[in-house]
Amino acid sequence: MGYCITAPPPLLARDAGILYTFAMKANYLMPTRILMGENCLRDQRAFLAPLGKKACIITGKNSARACGAYDDAVKALEANGQGFYVYDQVMSNPTDSCVYEAGAAAKREGCDFILAIGGGSPMDAAKAAAVLAVNDLSKEELFELAFTTALPIAAVPTTAGTGSETTPYSILVDTTGADGKSPRQGGPVKRSLGGPLLFPRFAFLDARYTRRLNRDTTVHTAIDALSHAVESALTPRASRLSDVLARESAVMIRDCFAALLDFPADPAEFPLEIREKLLLAASMAGMAIAQTGTTVVHSMGYHFTLDWGTDHGRANGLLMGPFLSWCEEKEREAAAAGTALAPRIPGLRAALGLDLEEFRGILEKLLGKREKAGEAELAAWGAAKMKNAANTYIQPTQEEIDRIFREAVG
Amino acid sequence: MGYCITAPPPLLARDAGILYTFAMKANYLMPTRILMGENCLRDQRAFLAPLGKKACIITGKNSARACGAYDDAVKALEANGQGFYVYDQVMSNPTDSCVYEAGAAAKREGCDFILAIGGGSPMDAAKAAAVLAVNDLSKEELFELAFTTALPIAAVPTTAGTGSETTPYSILVDTTGADGKSPRQGGPVKRSLGGPLLFPRFAFLDARYTRRLNRDTTVHTAIDALSHAVESALTPRASRLSDVLARESAVMIRDCFAALLDFPADPAEFPLEIREKLLLAASMAGMAIAQTGTTVVHSMGYHFTLDWGTDHGRANGLLMGPFLSWCEEKEREAAAAGTALAPRIPGLRAALGLDLEEFRGILEKLLGKREKAGEAELAAWGAAKMKNAANTYIQPTQEEIDRIFREAVG
Repeated sequence: MGYCITAPPPLLARDAGILYTFAMKANYLMPTRILMGENCLRDQRAFLAPLGKKACIITGKNSARACGAYDDAVKALEANGQGFYVYDQVMSNPTDSCVYEAGAAAKREGCDFILAIGGGSPMDAAKAAAVLAVNDLSKEELFELAFTTALPIAAVPTTAGTGSETTPYSILVDTTGADGKSPRQGGPVKRSLGGPLLFPRFAFLDARYTRRLNRDTTVHTAIDALSHAVESALTPRASRLSDVLARESAVMIRDCFAALLDFPADPAEFPLEIREKLLLAASMAGMAIAQTGTTVVHSMGYHFTLDWGTDHGRANGLLMGPFLSWCEEKEREAAAAGTALAPRIPGLRAALGLDLEEFRGILEKLLGKREKAGEAELAAWGAAKMKNAANTYIQPTQEEIDRIFREAVG
Repeated sequence: MGYCITAPPPLLARDAGILYTFAMKANYLMPTRILMGENCLRDQRAFLAPLGKKACIITGKNSARACGAYDDAVKALEANGQGFYVYDQVMSNPTDSCVYEAGAAAKREGCDFILAIGGGSPMDAAKAAAVLAVNDLSKEELFELAFTTALPIAAVPTTAGTGSETTPYSILVDTTGADGKSPRQGGPVKRSLGGPLLFPRFAFLDARYTRRLNRDTTVHTAIDALSHAVESALTPRASRLSDVLARESAVMIRDCFAALLDFPADPAEFPLEIREKLLLAASMAGMAIAQTGTTVVHSMGYHFTLDWGTDHGRANGLLMGPFLSWCEEKEREAAAAGTALAPRIPGLRAALGLDLEEFRGILEKLLGKREKAGEAELAAWGAAKMKNAANTYIQPTQEEIDRIFREAVG
């Protein structure tokens, strides 16, 4: 058959249809306190007080200020009698040099904790900076997790997608490709670090901070969260605990499809109730991937982002349809061959209340015109090693990865 | 109308039917790492190593040894090179004097952490002991949470009901009734303490430890977990995050109804898959009530336990049917009067896939012959103040509490 079956069989057949799939094994941890609601930074600022005398606010150049989160954070700190230093130089897809700079600033300024404000990029950068502020590490030591301390982190997401506020992951761009393992030697690669110390202590979810996001950012971040929810359920590590969060997140995002397809000309007119739902769904999908990680889809999508600058969520979205159809095909083949592969696509279909074709149709409308790759790009990507392939419930062969790339953007 | 409406309206009507109810406000925390699976104590013992050199095992007189959990725990500690002291004097519904004794023992023996093995009683006792081992507190100081430290706790549940392994609560019997607020002055009262320090660091879920539980204990603990799941969704504090856990737990227990009704003569023949499902469902219901607390049902049930020695789960079960019917009646009245009460019973019905009457019918079969109270008892209970009444989405009047008691055991 050419693929490796890693999924445990479901314990009870009568569960089929009410959830994706599950194994009664779990190693579940999600210690972040989630504080959600309008004005949560103001109303729940007491939680920040014990973190220390001085915060290092880590954010991007503009968006945190424009959306109001920065002002609310500063007011909360001031009301608590806490000082702060601002590092606002985080770019999209933050680099190794950026997080070293941020970590050094937090150390130099004597900061006791990190307050991350922004989308996935500032939050991911803040996690690495929280480590580097209290550890003198080479880049390899950082990625090898050669540390046992980090400053505590509070996260204020200003997009509804990444889920970084509830994960222990930091995804960075290594600009030197110094790992020597990548096909992109000498070029930038996405690398991740992860561990319990990187879970934010607090996630402040106030959907008002996402109100100014335009149609593309809103849709692409929603697809990012949906991709987390769907991929989590398609990892070998999925458990009933991760699945319940993944499924609920996927259902919540599905319930926003109609509104997303009908996005108004003025982003401020996009209903706040939908933005709230997307924000919580993104955090719940984060809770799910915090347990399971993501699949080959994420590894593949990084190529679009690095080579084309494609939004991370959009990159996943471009791949999701072809990937799910490939999963379904593999499940059909396994059933026909009598192989003991526990199918997961029927559970996904049941949870979403959508056929795969319907689901793909909605995704296409949300994505609009697809990017097209040239043959040289397709050949390079199709030959590249995909780190998360082993974290997919059916491991794709290199030929299958190539085929999915071609279906997505060929 | 005579009742106070505390439920927020649902944000989106189109959600009705896929969940209980929710508010987009949350204050969610559940920092316990859940390690589930056969032999998890052996396979995941490395997690215990950093907790310190010496454990205080806190357990009851027999069951932890009989079920195998004690041996597995000792082997795990020995393999880690950790010493231990055993306090095995926890009784059902542990008393204040018991937890002071256990705390003093842990202190005297120089223990670094607590390893709780058993049902709700040993786990709840262990939490208070973890506080008392490192704090010199009067009983009132203990219940007033006048502490900021506690020994770390690892919990190994040997029943599938309490969920104490994933909650920050410890429910104790104050044998002197010294709070002065109870109608049971001078007699024993149930009192609770709770706070983030009481969350176990680790919950080891191995369903094999529940294999010897007989029919009554299996059923009553399952009803306890179900009661947590249902009650959590009927608190004013319910959020979408707590609801998703509560609903999943309720659905999992519903899926075990048929097996529970058909309990075999030999408990060892009760399917382990069902025991696993009940165990995870209990922990998930614990995760839900960790956010929301319980309703008036719990406060009412404590009277049966204190006066009759009724199992805690059974006590809740006796009250649940009459309570839910009362909720439904109140929702009907509110709808007829045009009051803005967001109904929750339809969501419960939809989640369970059962009408309230069907659900009550199954509960009756599981409970068997109901206890009957005399008029003096009914009069005393009906007049007693119920602490959790305010934590119920519709607050019952004293007359309504009296009526629910009479319907349950009158």
